[in-house]
Amino acid sequence: MTPAFIALDWGTTSFRAYLVAVDGAVLDSRADAGGILSIADGAFEAAFERHVAGWDPALPVLASGMITSRQGWVEVPYVTAPAGLVDLAAAIRRKTTLSGREIVFVPGVCLRGPSGVPDVIRGEETQLIGASDASDGMYVTRGTHCKWIEVRAARIDRFATFMTGEVFAVLKEHSILGRLMTVGDASGGGFELGVKAGLNERDGSGGLLHMLFSARTLGLFGDIEGEQLAPYLSGLLLGAEIAGARAMFAPGTRPITVVGSTVLTAPFMVALKLAGLNSQLAPEDAAVRGLAKIGRQIGVVA
Amino acid sequence: MTPAFIALDWGTTSFRAYLVAVDGAVLDSRADAGGILSIADGAFEAAFERHVAGWDPALPVLASGMITSRQGWVEVPYVTAPAGLVDLAAAIRRKTTLSGREIVFVPGVCLRGPSGVPDVIRGEETQLIGASDASDGMYVTRGTHCKWIEVRAARIDRFATFMTGEVFAVLKEHSILGRLMTVGDASGGGFELGVKAGLNERDGSGGLLHMLFSARTLGLFGDIEGEQLAPYLSGLLLGAEIAGARAMFAPGTRPITVVGSTVLTAPFMVALKLAGLNSQLAPEDAAVRGLAKIGRQIGVVA
Repeated sequence: MTPAFIALDWGTTSFRAYLVAVDGAVLDSRADAGGILSIADGAFEAAFERHVAGWDPALPVLASGMITSRQGWVEVPYVTAPAGLVDLAAAIRRKTTLSGREIVFVPGVCLRGPSGVPDVIRGEETQLIGASDASDGMYVTRGTHCKWIEVRAARIDRFATFMTGEVFAVLKEHSILGRLMTVGDASGGGFELGVKAGLNERDGSGGLLHMLFSARTLGLFGDIEGEQLAPYLSGLLLGAEIAGARAMFAPGTRPITVVGSTVLTAPFMVALKLAGLNSQLAPEDAAVRGLAKIGRQIGVVA
Repeated sequence: MTPAFIALDWGTTSFRAYLVAVDGAVLDSRADAGGILSIADGAFEAAFERHVAGWDPALPVLASGMITSRQGWVEVPYVTAPAGLVDLAAAIRRKTTLSGREIVFVPGVCLRGPSGVPDVIRGEETQLIGASDASDGMYVTRGTHCKWIEVRAARIDRFATFMTGEVFAVLKEHSILGRLMTVGDASGGGFELGVKAGLNERDGSGGLLHMLFSARTLGLFGDIEGEQLAPYLSGLLLGAEIAGARAMFAPGTRPITVVGSTVLTAPFMVALKLAGLNSQLAPEDAAVRGLAKIGRQIGVVA
């Protein structure tokens, strides 16, 4: 099949490029941990050309993720929510590289919450365009930072960032909570116990800063095994995230569409089920699909 | 004045010893960062003798803090709450060192909360005995982990640990939230803004895992200066702690007694005031006073 365009999903800590056919089929791909933080002196073009060596330089390139941020290759200012496909397409920035490639950079989306506090997504808007088929409802992207996104009238209406993944990582690696954790069979009851505790974060529970300490004391008192403590902490944080997001978005009974790699989406969907919430999985290539839609919208992809 | 006993407050990351007169006056003291984590192969006695060189070996020693834990010198099992001076005194452990010193080790206190989850204090029970004069009410000790302790009928009735100090430290040092923080004048409005945001953690706010991200976006959008971001995050966490603890303990209008060093108690008391709660400062030598009371109770101190 003939390649139609190159999809570039270049984030803070990972590089992913896809050679895509006109029907959306991925013909080839290149990926590694060379995120934008690993690029010195703004040498993005050299890194990009090294990654996509052999791919036709006449193909248009569509790029999303932190590569479009201030720390990236070409900064694209945020579009303010509500924002849909047409709004994103109208705000893209273009660049022609030294080697003659035409690159389109997709903007992120920002908003100010009810109390005036800003929030941002960059990269997730493209995943959402790819995952949504423009249908209204809740979408959640999984990653270091997780984004709960509400689509209304085919546009990103509002969203909120949850630092769940990063908070888990820093507490496990750098706090006292990691000390009693051991590596082993994580399939026991720790995760479910944690989710239920996190979901019950309410008046009288003391809140998250108190409940976190249970990931130490349950181990100290032998209530749960060392190998269950990391799943417990992960569950506790997912439960607290879901409790907070549910109160914010009131998702109702419509299934929540979950976007991301299986290792992150699977436990989250278990946690949603424990919370009594329905969910469904988005296609894994949501970013590629989103870039294709934006490319068609601006006439760069056939 | 004649020395009456040696008070030893030996924690995870600090060593403090005091030479104390019969009236409670501190005649001499030794302190450094040689906490129990820095002691290799259980060589506690050698480290102790090095620190207190020159102090009369005939004086009784009273010890509290993590030195009485499983990782310490002599493990003293937890006493279960409710527990007061008499209960603590009845559960002490004694040791005679190779050099002939008589050491009394004070127990910590444990409980299981309403949902059966354990919680513990070790060292704070002694500070509390020293700070309380046995009067009923709420006490809060400040440190890496903070303890809200309710005294009822002159005993530690219930308590809860909040990981506020450690969570602040790991987020500042190891998460993306530290990236935009700059060092500078911290006296601006960031701290107060953070406390108010944290106090408002409630249904619809998204909860702490969402609100933490504001310590990045407020900086990204220039709403607050880089030097205000660390005070903002500190205030946000203190506000969330107070909101959670208030719902748990319903402290009412009686002043909350705050225990700890000024650098930690001062911002916390400002945060309590912003929450509309009254507070008063405990004497800085609460641990020494508590050890003296326990010593008198068991007849080791005159």
